[in-house]
Amino acid sequence: MIRLPVPTAQITAVPAVTPFVAPEELARRAGLPALLRLGANESAFGPSPRAIAAMREAAEHASWYGDPESIDLRTALAARHACAVDNVVVGSGIDDLMSLIVRTFCAPGDAALATRGTYATWTYHVAAYGVRAETADPTPDAAIDVDALLERAARTAPKVVYVANPDNPSGAFTSAAELARLRAGLADGVLLVIDEAYADFVDDRLLPSATLEPRTIRLRTFSKAYGLAGARVGYAIAAADYVRTFQKIRQHFGVNRTAQIGALAALADPAFAQSVVAEVTRGRADYAELGRRLGCRTLPSATNFVCFEIGTKAAAEEMVGALLARGVFVRKPAAPPIDGFIRVTVGTGAERAVFAEIFSEALASMREKAAV
Amino acid sequence: MIRLPVPTAQITAVPAVTPFVAPEELARRAGLPALLRLGANESAFGPSPRAIAAMREAAEHASWYGDPESIDLRTALAARHACAVDNVVVGSGIDDLMSLIVRTFCAPGDAALATRGTYATWTYHVAAYGVRAETADPTPDAAIDVDALLERAARTAPKVVYVANPDNPSGAFTSAAELARLRAGLADGVLLVIDEAYADFVDDRLLPSATLEPRTIRLRTFSKAYGLAGARVGYAIAAADYVRTFQKIRQHFGVNRTAQIGALAALADPAFAQSVVAEVTRGRADYAELGRRLGCRTLPSATNFVCFEIGTKAAAEEMVGALLARGVFVRKPAAPPIDGFIRVTVGTGAERAVFAEIFSEALASMREKAAV
Repeated sequence: MIRLPVPTAQITAVPAVTPFVAPEELARRAGLPALLRLGANESAFGPSPRAIAAMREAAEHASWYGDPESIDLRTALAARHACAVDNVVVGSGIDDLMSLIVRTFCAPGDAALATRGTYATWTYHVAAYGVRAETADPTPDAAIDVDALLERAARTAPKVVYVANPDNPSGAFTSAAELARLRAGLADGVLLVIDEAYADFVDDRLLPSATLEPRTIRLRTFSKAYGLAGARVGYAIAAADYVRTFQKIRQHFGVNRTAQIGALAALADPAFAQSVVAEVTRGRADYAELGRRLGCRTLPSATNFVCFEIGTKAAAEEMVGALLARGVFVRKPAAPPIDGFIRVTVGTGAERAVFAEIFSEALASMREKAAV
Repeated sequence: MIRLPVPTAQITAVPAVTPFVAPEELARRAGLPALLRLGANESAFGPSPRAIAAMREAAEHASWYGDPESIDLRTALAARHACAVDNVVVGSGIDDLMSLIVRTFCAPGDAALATRGTYATWTYHVAAYGVRAETADPTPDAAIDVDALLERAARTAPKVVYVANPDNPSGAFTSAAELARLRAGLADGVLLVIDEAYADFVDDRLLPSATLEPRTIRLRTFSKAYGLAGARVGYAIAAADYVRTFQKIRQHFGVNRTAQIGALAALADPAFAQSVVAEVTRGRADYAELGRRLGCRTLPSATNFVCFEIGTKAAAEEMVGALLARGVFVRKPAAPPIDGFIRVTVGTGAERAVFAEIFSEALASMREKAAV
């Protein structure tokens, strides 16, 4: 028998993951032509028509590499965030930038701290680099608990603390004052990462006012309010030193050319993004009302999704399956205190009406069975 | 003064790189509206019209995530390469897969071996993971020297040996027999990576016949013959165990949705790819003839580019600048024995005619100056 090349000890130790399964694949398995896509917090309102037009036009030049420095896009982003081009680095989604951050600031065995149950891909990258994932408990409402984070940071000496604001999967918003208290309570040498994937749904005046804090990196994306999840464009706002460091290790050509053009066009159409935010606000109110009508608690949300309480973890899992069988794709939070909830993306008005009907029916059916 | 978060010692030690500069940016700096793009081996013949149509249609659904498992595309690729879906992993270009391979198989301080002067991004990732870059000399014609690689491997015990076939930037092709001799001469525990980015320009019958060799990973791309460089779709053909390992650490959503759809459509149009290969073959002959006419040696090439000998390294650099000033973007190999060459992508017939004229003029001008 020949000896085969083997991965390093660090990579061998990384746990195997259950990959995300696309709704197209779930539909195939369920024997359905398509699903109502309310499971991945994609924008039901699509990209700006200007972005679509720009991407359609760009298709014929897909044989050209995109700008490895994303200069046009970074220039527009720097203007938007009132920082320098050197404070912006673009990646193929926030996930890509998370990977760069963990790799840059954490050696194997170092600690990285986050709130239990927050965005799973952060923890995924932490594990994949052999970094110790430390967690702090969330509040009873599944929001970030600054005191718990500070207490845990004092005990575990993390290199990086990660906060999603607003949070996914809870939807909870943490105030600028609370974030300032977190930053102030952390040792100077600790990097604070604020994942603002959903921050476009929040009034800018409620977000931390200083664009640049030298020990903080902010992450933003075109995947949510801008409706470009499939394009894979995210960015980090960071001290120029950190941007220069990422430059030494990042994929230079990682961001699709058409996606860069689409993101630039989306950014140039703020009226469209505002209309999406307004529609999402209406949709959240619809979902809250639906929850009241059905006797299902919903969590306050500052995002484009709402969590509905179903009951136990097993009951929530059953509901995900029941909705799937009825053609609706949703996901559910994995960790307490909200593992008995389902997470539902705000759809269009028509989609919300369809969801309300199917969810009501599935819930009634589940309650009927439970009552037997 | 506050203490700032600092990168790990390994990341701090990574050398700063001169990033690639896009031709759009070079044009801007030169005050020109656009350049003749012959510097990045993009396909002058574009993507298949079917791929363009598919991508145009996909633009309006850019708000949907692409399949994180790329099942449709991997199924089509498995059929093309007569292997299982589990033997294929898709990434955002070959660069992405290189990064995964180095990260998986090399710990910091381990050695990785390649031919001096071959594809620079391989060496970039090797350095970025703190891996020792070992090099073997190429042949006098800048081709892979199997004896030199084996001799160097015996002395440096690399974890991975990298070969680009056909090679970039030389264009040289290494026969299947030579590659088999390389594989046989390496210790079993050494991974052989064959970068086949340009292999679509080579008759399949000349490539290694076994799709899967358990100690070898092959890398392919849609960037060259398929004309989708801007889309960022590459793939690796590897033992299922290795694909499972990459699954533990890769970016699940790294590949743009529209790009996956475009790649699938491109794959379904083999006649177009064949026409590109035929046109590129004609273009290489044109360039060889141009070289003869101008008294410039050209290197044999199995790719979509040809290297022209200019003289010294400084002369070749001057020629890159002279062409840029005349609106033509080319690059040049960095390392001997071909650092006195420029590397020119095969353009369309019209582009080749323009290049011939501008290059002749620039060469005459340079020779005139030298004669003064």
